[in-house]
Amino acid sequence: MDAAAVLDHLRRLNATAAFNRWAGFEVVAAQPGEVALRLPWRADLGQYAGTLHAGLMSALVDTACGYAAHTAVGSRVVASHCAVDYVAPGTGTAFVATARVVKAGRRQIFTRAEVHGDRDGEPVLIAIGSTILIPLG
Amino acid sequence: MDAAAVLDHLRRLNATAAFNRWAGFEVVAAQPGEVALRLPWRADLGQYAGTLHAGLMSALVDTACGYAAHTAVGSRVVASHCAVDYVAPGTGTAFVATARVVKAGRRQIFTRAEVHGDRDGEPVLIAIGSTILIPLG
Amino acid sequence: MDAAAVLDHLRRLNATAAFNRWAGFEVVAAQPGEVALRLPWRADLGQYAGTLHAGLMSALVDTACGYAAHTAVGSRVVASHCAVDYVAPGTGTAFVATARVVKAGRRQIFTRAEVHGDRDGEPVLIAIGSTILIPLG
Amino acid sequence: MDAAAVLDHLRRLNATAAFNRWAGFEVVAAQPGEVALRLPWRADLGQYAGTLHAGLMSALVDTACGYAAHTAVGSRVVASHCAVDYVAPGTGTAFVATARVVKAGRRQIFTRAEVHGDRDGEPVLIAIGSTILIPLG
Repeated sequence: MDAAAVLDHLRRLNATAAFNRWAGFEVVAAQPGEVALRLPWRADLGQYAGTLHAGLMSALVDTACGYAAHTAVGSRVVASHCAVDYVAPGTGTAFVATARVVKAGRRQIFTRAEVHGDRDGEPVLIAIGSTILIPLG
Repeated sequence: MDAAAVLDHLRRLNATAAFNRWAGFEVVAAQPGEVALRLPWRADLGQYAGTLHAGLMSALVDTACGYAAHTAVGSRVVASHCAVDYVAPGTGTAFVATARVVKAGRRQIFTRAEVHGDRDGEPVLIAIGSTILIPLG
Repeated sequence: MDAAAVLDHLRRLNATAAFNRWAGFEVVAAQPGEVALRLPWRADLGQYAGTLHAGLMSALVDTACGYAAHTAVGSRVVASHCAVDYVAPGTGTAFVATARVVKAGRRQIFTRAEVHGDRDGEPVLIAIGSTILIPLG
Repeated sequence: MDAAAVLDHLRRLNATAAFNRWAGFEVVAAQPGEVALRLPWRADLGQYAGTLHAGLMSALVDTACGYAAHTAVGSRVVASHCAVDYVAPGTGTAFVATARVVKAGRRQIFTRAEVHGDRDGEPVLIAIGSTILIPLG
């Protein structure tokens, strides 16, 4: 698949996930093995302090990595492990997770991601993460 | 604080987090350094296959660990790192994350959690995780 | 295999690993899915401050988890991911890593470990870790 | 400090760690926040299959990340968390870990590393990792 077809495929896939629809995840860029996922901020996504819930940073990392792995190998994938470092508070008008495949093996796919918050048009790194996925069939 | 006061305090705190209210997180047990957090299943929480979104398993781990750390040290805490292993599919009528503090140091609090899905009344382990938190002031 | 046979098998296996021999890893207890690995302290194992090198805490976690996984599934296993939290300085006259299998699936084995330092006969928790392993053939 | 002074400082520091001397870690490049650490292969460093022990891949990641953090902030640092993904077998005539600081905060320093094996002059990615460190004083 070329990049346009990959993007179109992921948008359809993304629309089938109820939680992704509620949260507002948008696939904004994709090519085999690399994906960017955007989440506009709204108050529903916040924790106590009114900034992005850490669980949503993890959800962005997990989802972007899953899409990157899926487009790299073609088959369905399932997440086995997700780790996220929260390096700055989750403030911004929108958040963008960029994920890429580091190594796609036969039994496992290793991916990495970064999440930036958009603060006055400037991307600020707020989280880094990595995910291991298992290719299915 | 005794266990009843800890539980009451966490329930008030939990009610101030917009995402936790939307998701439906319920603090069902607590004592200093140990917390149980419950999430009844509904379709909005699902991914493609209609099972619990991995991001919500991470959110449960992160939130339960944060509460366990907070009740252990008394002060506010902020998550620095969260890692989750997804050991079984996220199916169940409800999910319960139990978290406990492993070590509360001056600079960092180390916690661990397990998430079980309720399948016909039987708890089935679906995720294990660990979180590092920083005590604030 | 019964526990005595498992222990004997792991001791032979342990003796085939050059690094384990140099470091001085000793399998001190084992049953299917659970292993204890001991490392007597000596100055060669230290970092700058003269306490146990973090790399050796990771090596203990990795090795103990590998043995626990191997004895749970019978086949050879290979480590895919290892994460360790260092919760206290690595001081003690000996160190003991205890590892157990949390979930042995068809494609992955999830394990957890703790490392204690022996300080005047008292075990003090110095590290916690988790490892994911892949069963081979 | 300029890059030459950083390199000289790290080499002296590296020589004070008994385990690093035994293993043969060599600091081969450094500037504030970025370090490359080399380990020539020899049989003593192996596990059962005769390839680099996973514990030594973790030790390389941990040490390189510690040096990167130390040179970024100037003060002593202590590792809090280290996670490594083993993406390919540890074969090569030498191994090089390259680490860099992703974010140096007041309370924590987040780093990432890659380990390549030298196979016939070609660097092959064998591990990726991340470490969290705490600045002291």
